[in-house]
Amino acid sequence: MRIDNLQYANWSQRIFKQMREGQLDAVHVTIAYHENFRETVLNIERWNRWFEDHADLIMHGRSASDVDEARRSSRTAIFFGTQNPSPIEDDIGLVQICHTLGIRFMQLSYNNQSLLATGCYETHDPGLTRMGREVVKEMNRVGMVIDMSHSSDRSTLEAAEVSSRPIAITHANPASWHPARRNKSDAVISAVTKRDGMLGFSLYPHHLKDGSACTLESFCRMIADTAERVGAEHLGIGSDLCQDQPDSVVEWMRSGRWTRSVDFGEGSADAPGFPDMPHWFKDNRDFDQLRSGLLACGLDDNEVAGIMGGNWYRFYETSFKPIGEVT
Amino acid sequence: MRIDNLQYANWSQRIFKQMREGQLDAVHVTIAYHENFRETVLNIERWNRWFEDHADLIMHGRSASDVDEARRSSRTAIFFGTQNPSPIEDDIGLVQICHTLGIRFMQLSYNNQSLLATGCYETHDPGLTRMGREVVKEMNRVGMVIDMSHSSDRSTLEAAEVSSRPIAITHANPASWHPARRNKSDAVISAVTKRDGMLGFSLYPHHLKDGSACTLESFCRMIADTAERVGAEHLGIGSDLCQDQPDSVVEWMRSGRWTRSVDFGEGSADAPGFPDMPHWFKDNRDFDQLRSGLLACGLDDNEVAGIMGGNWYRFYETSFKPIGEVT
Repeated sequence: MRIDNLQYANWSQRIFKQMREGQLDAVHVTIAYHENFRETVLNIERWNRWFEDHADLIMHGRSASDVDEARRSSRTAIFFGTQNPSPIEDDIGLVQICHTLGIRFMQLSYNNQSLLATGCYETHDPGLTRMGREVVKEMNRVGMVIDMSHSSDRSTLEAAEVSSRPIAITHANPASWHPARRNKSDAVISAVTKRDGMLGFSLYPHHLKDGSACTLESFCRMIADTAERVGAEHLGIGSDLCQDQPDSVVEWMRSGRWTRSVDFGEGSADAPGFPDMPHWFKDNRDFDQLRSGLLACGLDDNEVAGIMGGNWYRFYETSFKPIGEVT
Repeated sequence: MRIDNLQYANWSQRIFKQMREGQLDAVHVTIAYHENFRETVLNIERWNRWFEDHADLIMHGRSASDVDEARRSSRTAIFFGTQNPSPIEDDIGLVQICHTLGIRFMQLSYNNQSLLATGCYETHDPGLTRMGREVVKEMNRVGMVIDMSHSSDRSTLEAAEVSSRPIAITHANPASWHPARRNKSDAVISAVTKRDGMLGFSLYPHHLKDGSACTLESFCRMIADTAERVGAEHLGIGSDLCQDQPDSVVEWMRSGRWTRSVDFGEGSADAPGFPDMPHWFKDNRDFDQLRSGLLACGLDDNEVAGIMGGNWYRFYETSFKPIGEVT
């Protein structure tokens, strides 16, 4: 089982073919950064066309059993997620509507304060908002995973505490390895994983020690160390692969419609675009190298199989069904 | 099997209980008259609450097998439909989105010209538009039924011709029995039913000979006559029951947002509101009387069972699945 639990590529047949070459059984893809509900639906409409036009390579994933179905038919199951709660606007009823449309992960905030929670770039973090607490309950009810990748510490700790179902950080690394604002404190990682939540390791260079020059050994050693602290069964990959995207897309991710000036996010005025990926992880065909790197770090076969996809698969099994349907 | 293929009541627990008393296994309900996509989604959100709050009485119906499931659990399966294509706006991609959200019937026009077809109150009917022909194909593909109840003749004839799957007139009567503008010519009824399409008989008084004073005998005789002409297997009920609605709702149905003056539709300045239902069909508890009336007209048990629901059930079986999934 091989699952990458976060990508946002400039989708094309070429990339879907690379997913097959890399033997990806499932990929969680971002379908909205700052889009409102209607705009998110437009993005789903685009995916519906891709599912039709590339039915030999991909299929829409809604449940863990769809990953099995994709595997059986040599395709990749695509699971929808949003990096911001903007698709539900100010309307809690849209949580169920979005779940019906296939959305399985939603971040409660993206860098900034949202209606629900605080983003990791804000100065102050008052924690989950009144609406945030209601939406966490509703996401629990319908079977949508709370993703705190771009949220700040207090909001994340409260989400882990308030949520009746395990939550996820789909794409980030431990700040103890590389102290980026987007990486996570040991307290946050522990709060999420000790409640059976998941941490997906990111390969986005700004989240890596030494950035684009990060070595495979350093990355895998960091994973092995984290496995020792929190247990390998709570770990997976969320590569944050943004393949073939023009720099205008990273500008949209960072600045959306919320500012008239340019927000460089993790970049800078000197390097405002997408950073180069490390040479050992350029695209979906590089998962074998990652697997070898993990084995070379002393993780055993079972642990590596879990990190490469088995753990996300089990998390999918228990996370996507409405609460009454979970056995 | 008992199915009413068109209602638009002011929904309440009381009415859902009456559906159970009347032994309705399924009801097709209108969820939009002039609503755009976002407004239609708001209406679905309201239904989601009703499904949750009245889970002992109703359930969301998406396929014929959901009617069986409702029957097994002594509930009524609720199927969504819209009386206008306004929910898809000018975006053909919304057809599949609406199907995913559970919409199974969509009228191509409601009284007026739409982007797709002409309504029965227009003076001229140029037939299906360019977009109309594309949307018919798309509805065929995803499994959404083309409903021409409020459309005019030429548009309906063209829809029956162009559609690769049987279409429906969910709620109307033969104009030869009562020449209302909303009732249908023999040519239209023949074009729809000879291609395995369905005609649902309406109990809305403006569609009845003698209006609210129409007798059960007259209504059932008309059905028996129609059965003789086109075959009982293409006939069902689409009562058009608008129970407990305030008159402001019939104003919304007729005038939407398209006029600044008042359009009285089938009513008049003297009688602008909802007409009184015939005394023998006031609500969902009166289906037994209807059944007795049909038997009294000489239709046999099988024919009556079909008209009371079996025919709609078989139509559901072949109409709601995407084209590739139809066996």
